[in-house]
Amino acid sequence: MRDAGLRTWVDQMGNVHGRSEALNTTAETLLIGSHADTVVDAGKFDGSLGIICAISALKVLKTNGKLHKLSRPVEVIAFSDEEGVRFQSTFLGSAAIAGQLPASALRTSDKNGATIQDVLKENSFEGSDASLLQVKYDPESVWGYIEVHIEQGPVLESLGSPLGIVKGIAGQTRLKVKVSGSQGHAGTVPMLMRQDSMVAAAELIVNLESLCKYPDRALTYKEQCGSYKKESFSGLVCTVGEISSWPGASNVIPGQVNFTVDIRAMDDDDRGAIVTEFSRQVYQICDNRMVNCTIEHKHTAEAVHCDSELSQQLKQAAHSTVKKMSRKIQDEVPVLMSGAGHDAMAMSHLTKVGMLFVRCRGGVSHSPDEYVSDNDVWAAGLVLLHFLDQHVSGDCMSS
Amino acid sequence: MRDAGLRTWVDQMGNVHGRSEALNTTAETLLIGSHADTVVDAGKFDGSLGIICAISALKVLKTNGKLHKLSRPVEVIAFSDEEGVRFQSTFLGSAAIAGQLPASALRTSDKNGATIQDVLKENSFEGSDASLLQVKYDPESVWGYIEVHIEQGPVLESLGSPLGIVKGIAGQTRLKVKVSGSQGHAGTVPMLMRQDSMVAAAELIVNLESLCKYPDRALTYKEQCGSYKKESFSGLVCTVGEISSWPGASNVIPGQVNFTVDIRAMDDDDRGAIVTEFSRQVYQICDNRMVNCTIEHKHTAEAVHCDSELSQQLKQAAHSTVKKMSRKIQDEVPVLMSGAGHDAMAMSHLTKVGMLFVRCRGGVSHSPDEYVSDNDVWAAGLVLLHFLDQHVSGDCMSS
Repeated sequence: MRDAGLRTWVDQMGNVHGRSEALNTTAETLLIGSHADTVVDAGKFDGSLGIICAISALKVLKTNGKLHKLSRPVEVIAFSDEEGVRFQSTFLGSAAIAGQLPASALRTSDKNGATIQDVLKENSFEGSDASLLQVKYDPESVWGYIEVHIEQGPVLESLGSPLGIVKGIAGQTRLKVKVSGSQGHAGTVPMLMRQDSMVAAAELIVNLESLCKYPDRALTYKEQCGSYKKESFSGLVCTVGEISSWPGASNVIPGQVNFTVDIRAMDDDDRGAIVTEFSRQVYQICDNRMVNCTIEHKHTAEAVHCDSELSQQLKQAAHSTVKKMSRKIQDEVPVLMSGAGHDAMAMSHLTKVGMLFVRCRGGVSHSPDEYVSDNDVWAAGLVLLHFLDQHVSGDCMSS
Repeated sequence: MRDAGLRTWVDQMGNVHGRSEALNTTAETLLIGSHADTVVDAGKFDGSLGIICAISALKVLKTNGKLHKLSRPVEVIAFSDEEGVRFQSTFLGSAAIAGQLPASALRTSDKNGATIQDVLKENSFEGSDASLLQVKYDPESVWGYIEVHIEQGPVLESLGSPLGIVKGIAGQTRLKVKVSGSQGHAGTVPMLMRQDSMVAAAELIVNLESLCKYPDRALTYKEQCGSYKKESFSGLVCTVGEISSWPGASNVIPGQVNFTVDIRAMDDDDRGAIVTEFSRQVYQICDNRMVNCTIEHKHTAEAVHCDSELSQQLKQAAHSTVKKMSRKIQDEVPVLMSGAGHDAMAMSHLTKVGMLFVRCRGGVSHSPDEYVSDNDVWAAGLVLLHFLDQHVSGDCMSS
């Protein structure tokens, strides 16, 4: 950051800031950020790509002698804890800046009982409720927030496009379904006398997939009412990632099977409709099978819609970049949604947000196999540079 | 056993024997047995009920002065390790007597590395290959084997009958199915681009249930060929008891899901047909879903058919007993199959076998809730007493 000519500091939540002031000292700040952490055994692109691209773009401005011509302050923020690996609580750094992290969060503890407060203090931060409040930005001082991030999915690769504009971040519902049947000996209970929690769970999982693959089929009453359009259910995805059976022996009909459900969609009403319909199916199937089912709501997050003007500007910058780099007529830069959460989700509570996705190989992320080509990294940096141009006094291109 | 007038000893596999000789010293021996062990945290009826009933019946004979009138030797055996809890190998005691336990089995070790041989030696047994051979009975010295056991299932209770005659013990196939798909982020991979091992596994489990509930529907080609009759697929049961997903996080589409399959049927051809059809469905569904599936055969045991004459004798004895106890006109004593394995399975390699099932509450077994009413225990003992009558010189009833 210093090499790019930025003034740097670390705030009381461990977020690293690098800022370039503008001639107009009263202008609102453009924030560009992503997270400096990632998961255990991950690759090097998740989070850090966005930080490096921002610093690199500003360094080019500095090299070209344009950093002092910025019409508004530009600040790069490397957020401290987006993943929530240690404290099982995501967006710690960006939520603090957006004023979304309650003081009680500082008392969240890791599996060894150390709280966020303890860990901040150990690392020479204050860790007090007051110091947390200091981290919060005044919405009136901020113009907008931009984030570059790897897609972490296969869509851009399948479209053959290095870059994509994010129209929004999906809302999410996390459920835990518990199916309780009658435990029994695998050899002695006839098929028609079973209350088998495993097959009930399997039927629920198959139905969930079908519901999320073809929501229109299950939710036909919506169509009849005309309240849902063809393009609804955008970005709807449903996942069962964890399952366990009890007692878990090959020769015992499980008495209980628990599984997780993760439902995401761009539209919160869509998501609500799916959660309602899935719940209905759960109780119906469980009734039919004479097993007991409970659905626990573990987490809900509403969808975030990116700012249309910011997105349009990013789109134009991306279009110019891709056109210049490939020297051929380009299709439209794709617009897609993000199924994964990002710091932009927390920052949307502070200011308007825009996001640029970068293609990654095989949709792989959170893995050592995470890979983005040098060309695509380069393209992402150039988009930021193009984007910054509009905040440089004078209208000449910076690259 | 001594109290019942039996001569007792413990053999080199820890089986406890109690024997009453006959006047005719060359007559073949009637063996009556069950196992003295059970699983961890089990109830008190599994196994021990059969031993206690046999000893009690012989004690009544002694009390009535008929023990010395036996036309053939009668020997009660309390088998040493039927469950295989410690060494993961079932029927250790009865298999040794039936000559079905290879010497190599003595080198089987528990999870701490102690072998059966070590444990036998620690407990003052020889634990040698030669001593194992001594345990084996000569088939020519044995007349037949009878076992009383709790049903461990819900059939007798649902029929309102305290006792049932076992026509045979189901054969068993144990499979391990591994489903390998593409691991991915729960939010970023569209439904139609997934190779989700969880939903594939769920579909396989649902199909397995359907196949085993309604085998005739899936195996229609059999009907066309006329090779299967309506009453086929007797005792067919299929169970998925264990399942695991990898990496097992609520926000990750599992890259791999493994589950166990336990298939049992009275008829080995039926079981073979089901295993073949299930395997076909596995590969077809996995192909359709573009996931990789493997099926590992972990264990196969052929069905055992109880001796029809022994079964008929047990049935008559049971009918008389039930009639006498309830003082009303009884329906036929039900004939059912055993889906669970029993020592009779091992003993069938030595001699003809017959089994009597006793009703247990709720089909519960291998649990502290295992329960058999005093009346039903009493009835089982009386059946053995009736059965023994035919091996007492003279034709008067012993009770």
